[in-house]
Amino acid sequence: MRVGPSQDEIRRQNLGALLRYVHVHGATTRAELTTALGLNRSTIGALTADLAAAGLVTEGAPKETGRAGRPSLVVRPESDRVFAYAYSIEVDRLRAARVGLGGAVLDRRELDRPRGLTAAEAAPLLAGAVKEMRQAMPEDAVCVGAGVAVCGMVRRDDGLVRLGPTTGWVDEPIGTALGTELGVDVPVTVGNVADVAAFAEHARGAAAGCDNVIYLYGDVGVGAGIIAAGRRLTGHGGYSGEVGHMVVVRDGARCECGNRGCWETEIGEHGLLRAAGRSDARGREAMLAVFDAADRGDAQAQIAVRQAGDWLGFGVANLVNIFNPEMVIFGGTMRDLYLAAAAQVRSRLNSNGLPACLEHVRLRTPKLGEDAPLVGAAELAFDRLLADPLDVN
Amino acid sequence: MRVGPSQDEIRRQNLGALLRYVHVHGATTRAELTTALGLNRSTIGALTADLAAAGLVTEGAPKETGRAGRPSLVVRPESDRVFAYAYSIEVDRLRAARVGLGGAVLDRRELDRPRGLTAAEAAPLLAGAVKEMRQAMPEDAVCVGAGVAVCGMVRRDDGLVRLGPTTGWVDEPIGTALGTELGVDVPVTVGNVADVAAFAEHARGAAAGCDNVIYLYGDVGVGAGIIAAGRRLTGHGGYSGEVGHMVVVRDGARCECGNRGCWETEIGEHGLLRAAGRSDARGREAMLAVFDAADRGDAQAQIAVRQAGDWLGFGVANLVNIFNPEMVIFGGTMRDLYLAAAAQVRSRLNSNGLPACLEHVRLRTPKLGEDAPLVGAAELAFDRLLADPLDVN
Repeated sequence: MRVGPSQDEIRRQNLGALLRYVHVHGATTRAELTTALGLNRSTIGALTADLAAAGLVTEGAPKETGRAGRPSLVVRPESDRVFAYAYSIEVDRLRAARVGLGGAVLDRRELDRPRGLTAAEAAPLLAGAVKEMRQAMPEDAVCVGAGVAVCGMVRRDDGLVRLGPTTGWVDEPIGTALGTELGVDVPVTVGNVADVAAFAEHARGAAAGCDNVIYLYGDVGVGAGIIAAGRRLTGHGGYSGEVGHMVVVRDGARCECGNRGCWETEIGEHGLLRAAGRSDARGREAMLAVFDAADRGDAQAQIAVRQAGDWLGFGVANLVNIFNPEMVIFGGTMRDLYLAAAAQVRSRLNSNGLPACLEHVRLRTPKLGEDAPLVGAAELAFDRLLADPLDVN
Repeated sequence: MRVGPSQDEIRRQNLGALLRYVHVHGATTRAELTTALGLNRSTIGALTADLAAAGLVTEGAPKETGRAGRPSLVVRPESDRVFAYAYSIEVDRLRAARVGLGGAVLDRRELDRPRGLTAAEAAPLLAGAVKEMRQAMPEDAVCVGAGVAVCGMVRRDDGLVRLGPTTGWVDEPIGTALGTELGVDVPVTVGNVADVAAFAEHARGAAAGCDNVIYLYGDVGVGAGIIAAGRRLTGHGGYSGEVGHMVVVRDGARCECGNRGCWETEIGEHGLLRAAGRSDARGREAMLAVFDAADRGDAQAQIAVRQAGDWLGFGVANLVNIFNPEMVIFGGTMRDLYLAAAAQVRSRLNSNGLPACLEHVRLRTPKLGEDAPLVGAAELAFDRLLADPLDVN
């Protein structure tokens, strides 16, 4: 029969599938690729040859296995040579990194970020960090793209940061600013930090192999990256996952978004510090100080932590009833809060969650830790490469 | 290059795509199919011939267009001959229908459902209705499957109804019971009524062409069918969308799920009737009576409706912040409540929703009305056919 989708399209899909496999799993034998991708040996051979010619993978002998028979060749991603730039713009710091195909951070720089810094001011600082990294990198290194993780609502179409309530950003074109400043001739993809971290943990972290995941990320505010049926949930404009602005207390405390009683007013920085009687303090260090004080027996800190933990479980139960996830991951300050108040979180989750939704849900902390935003930002760039491996370069 | 996916697989995909197109859009010229599916004319011809040979479509001359040149042949779904059985199990009634390929309800039966009826008791009643419909149908009619819409949490793997808080069902194997009773030799697919209605509105109703949709369905309780990036959100076990059990009032009114302050305690049947001072009343008629009374100037009914409308907007705002949908559809009793209190719903949504999430969201009532659960249940069955058109039969 005459077929519709072109041979080219199928080839592109297969090239992407093979490259994705070694990107996620690292060095893989041809035999394993044959099984994992459901393609025959000669197809795997031809795809590997194409990817090797493009400088994306190498092929070589495996380590000695001790088994008889001709060993299957091993396909490895060009992890040291092919890389993406990854940026993370956080409330109080800026980070830049080179992340290799395969997900390893090859080099990194970190800068303080004065609160109030605009996109136009942040871009040259990050460009400086990139310049340093460029001087240190191998001559034959190839950049396949750049990704940015930001605290804020990011418009899917063009990466405009519509609103970063905690950074004060309104309609900041960080992607454009970085592209101009860096002179990188590949597009810069921008994503919300929780979405990006969820993407990273799903690709190669705590949620590897899980198709339905909520990654809860706390900074000053709280957001979620959501994986549904194995895919990132973005919403219509790219703004989904604003779970911190789920109202849990009618006429509750004033939130930075202008509304009242948002979930993050109870579990975010301000809520915890307020409950601990430390309303004048700010920042993650101040939050950690509350957990420390609770640990050391400070009664008011203990009450504040237990109360915030209970609210954390309260909102997580709502999300579990809405999404029926397999896993909830607590990242950023939510990790600290979860670890400090796990009993309260679980107790409230168990009383508010529907039994069928609670059945298989696992609570976890991130595996990639602080690197998740960088690794995830790089994944945004690699995603373009994997969609059409031979088109990039 | 030697390709992986077989010609058979591609052919199956193309057959499914063509059949889906005429299933959704009705009679379509070959020329339009060529454009819509991106396949060439000879491929469309071959696919159509295969589908016609299988009795799924017919091909014929179009109506006179008045334009010069050889007119393009028109492909029509075999809407009268090829059908699915669709069942809807509701709190106070049972419905059965034959739905033709293309989505038209060909025949239907409705029965009262005494509250408390089990799956084993419901199946023979529905089988009786089917027997009647069989006697009335053309001799060459072909059943391609059966779908069931139920109020309750449905396990994705096997269609077991884990919990129907409003029907009292716990672990009721309605799919199996119906399959046995009906002697239909195709599998019965079971889905939650809100999911199924959302599916129908997305395929051929108010949300046609929208990729991110929340369909809010009210009965005694409240649930949502969610379409994200064009696909049904099911969650890990099939239980997603239990938005009625998002807690909105800490230590609020007792819910049928055993918890307190669930959203449905404020916007569902019990909440509205309680607020209207009619706690002894039950059922949709009683709810409609409250809306009527409010319309006629009954002060307590007006307060109850405004309050429930405000709570409706409150929860919708939370969902809009979480999902960033393009459209929210109000079905079942939520339609009545929305129409009675649209001002309150919009006002609360506007004050609690994040501006970027509110930008493009449209509020709508269903286009398929009462038929949505039946049409959607049939879609569950057609989905299997469309995945592999020549395998069924």
